[in-house]
Amino acid sequence: MIVEVNTARFDSITLDNGATVAPVEVAYETYGALNPARSNAILILHAWTGDAHAAGISHETAKPGWWDNMIGPGKAFDTNKYFVICSNVLSGCNGTTGPSSVDPATGCPYAMTFPVTTIGDMVRLQRMLIDSMGIERLLAVAGGSMGGMQALEWAVDYPERVVCCLPIATTWRHSAQQIAFNEVGRQAIMADPDWNGGNYYGKQPPARGLAVARMVGHITFMSDDSMREKFGRRLRGKDAFGFDFEVDFEVESYLRYRGNQFVSRFDANSYLYTTKAMDYFDLAAGRGSLAAAFEKCTARFLVISFSSDWLYPSYQSREIVSALRGMNHDVAYVDLESNYGHDSFLVDVAEQSQLVSGFLASTFEKVR
Amino acid sequence: MIVEVNTARFDSITLDNGATVAPVEVAYETYGALNPARSNAILILHAWTGDAHAAGISHETAKPGWWDNMIGPGKAFDTNKYFVICSNVLSGCNGTTGPSSVDPATGCPYAMTFPVTTIGDMVRLQRMLIDSMGIERLLAVAGGSMGGMQALEWAVDYPERVVCCLPIATTWRHSAQQIAFNEVGRQAIMADPDWNGGNYYGKQPPARGLAVARMVGHITFMSDDSMREKFGRRLRGKDAFGFDFEVDFEVESYLRYRGNQFVSRFDANSYLYTTKAMDYFDLAAGRGSLAAAFEKCTARFLVISFSSDWLYPSYQSREIVSALRGMNHDVAYVDLESNYGHDSFLVDVAEQSQLVSGFLASTFEKVR
Repeated sequence: MIVEVNTARFDSITLDNGATVAPVEVAYETYGALNPARSNAILILHAWTGDAHAAGISHETAKPGWWDNMIGPGKAFDTNKYFVICSNVLSGCNGTTGPSSVDPATGCPYAMTFPVTTIGDMVRLQRMLIDSMGIERLLAVAGGSMGGMQALEWAVDYPERVVCCLPIATTWRHSAQQIAFNEVGRQAIMADPDWNGGNYYGKQPPARGLAVARMVGHITFMSDDSMREKFGRRLRGKDAFGFDFEVDFEVESYLRYRGNQFVSRFDANSYLYTTKAMDYFDLAAGRGSLAAAFEKCTARFLVISFSSDWLYPSYQSREIVSALRGMNHDVAYVDLESNYGHDSFLVDVAEQSQLVSGFLASTFEKVR
Repeated sequence: MIVEVNTARFDSITLDNGATVAPVEVAYETYGALNPARSNAILILHAWTGDAHAAGISHETAKPGWWDNMIGPGKAFDTNKYFVICSNVLSGCNGTTGPSSVDPATGCPYAMTFPVTTIGDMVRLQRMLIDSMGIERLLAVAGGSMGGMQALEWAVDYPERVVCCLPIATTWRHSAQQIAFNEVGRQAIMADPDWNGGNYYGKQPPARGLAVARMVGHITFMSDDSMREKFGRRLRGKDAFGFDFEVDFEVESYLRYRGNQFVSRFDANSYLYTTKAMDYFDLAAGRGSLAAAFEKCTARFLVISFSSDWLYPSYQSREIVSALRGMNHDVAYVDLESNYGHDSFLVDVAEQSQLVSGFLASTFEKVR
């Protein structure tokens, strides 16, 4: 399945903080076909530094999508049955308008003049995309991590347009610890002199700071167990006293490699904006309580967490489930056993696939 | 109790990797009095960025010691009964020889030419200090975190000289995750252009990189719970849409403050050396197994861990206890309930005090 990324363009979008971005573009991919009743559309929401390329092989890069093990013919999000859309996020850097986009008012990249963006703003732009495709109701909104936040926001902001919602390995608001990890990443970027107040486009980007930020991320994505299994204390071809401040342990080599690799594909300012969007995300804010936020929801929910995920611990999913149950919503919850930490929703998908597949089938049965 | 820091000076020390440092100085403080039998000396080993000022009020800075709640008249380490010594560590920057010390061969600071230092090297220098004080046997060696590693190394390297050993909130070797967190801190420092290969003495030090490194540390020292209790999601005097990339959340403000404060008291190169010492620490290495490492120990052990410490999780203490029990050593183990994460051994000391006090008293009873 060779896929291509598409771009939708809109005149403008008004954000939660009142600012307007004009014009605004959003990158997306689609897999499978929309049925005549337009009742089989599923919107996949990506995590933090993800992109619109969720499945298939990219025509441009020849790489598989980030959730290719979940989306495709016969897979959990079965493209023989469903029309699957994956949209990139506002303030990102993979084809959707963000700080690296050119501000038509100045002819230069927005950089830090780009307005602060919320999860609600990301979802608003996705709604414009879905509108433009002539889709009234989404059979499902689904995503892990920051994608789960968007899925929740969809169900709350546009209750009449979501038949079912699958928030995975996510939270309804960031804890102090989650904010703290993001803040360290931001500080690492802003401490790099090449960041230059965000004005580095066309110059040397803050590569070292961004790499350090990404290293912090990678530690939090894995579990103590999965790191031990993958790296242990193995040394990189040195004897016990050959040590120095070059790479000694394999885990160091991995972190440096992933950190440096990330620099080539992600914009540092987008890192700042997307982490802030997550930190500000709070479904209860301005709505009284989490339960009150869910009041008008009509969607069925499948909430999934993972036992070894310490970045988005299971108790955060249980809080979502409690609030939904308190409002008498239809909600299924599973805390899956997995050793892969937060990465589980991306890499340990056997049980998750069965759950998602069954949940979608029973939901689709009802709306057909 | 006004205390002053002392310095002992030795002609030279030969390190595990064969290098010699000459001369070598070590900073230490003492509290209480050595009894005529010289049988009441306790050596306190400090954590990572600690120093020799463990108790009392510093004559120089007017500040209380870092374990003043544990050491003093009538306290757990009762200075009415015991002669308590706290020694700073080799490769540190608080009065003991390290990378910021002047290399007599060049007249300039060692910087990164200082030899890589191990926990064993730190302990060897402490042994020289104890020798110089005419103390044959230590009633106890005790410390938390990196201090616990030194306590273990003492019991293993100098078994005939340690009557009891109290490793607290520590491990016998770093896991891949613990190495990874340290590596992120090192990378943050080395990514700062002011680090300049370690040659920043007399110039601008890598303050931004060091601050970021310290922020990572502070997150790992606290628990998810203690961060929530201390900060929650409280904003710093802004309304919901006043947000920007300045400090928004109180937890951000705290991390920045602590990060910047740290820069004024700690040397970035010492940060690199002490983290490497911890990462290389492996009691089993070169000794066959952990149990084999403990073979010649004569000490009694009191091992303490904390339920919410995810940086040095309780399973690491249990591994120490299992190995000791397997060798038929006298070992008591308590996993204390506490919400303060790794910081518990510093801040939540009520139960710890009782345990330590009773264990020391019964040990002292036997040797008198």
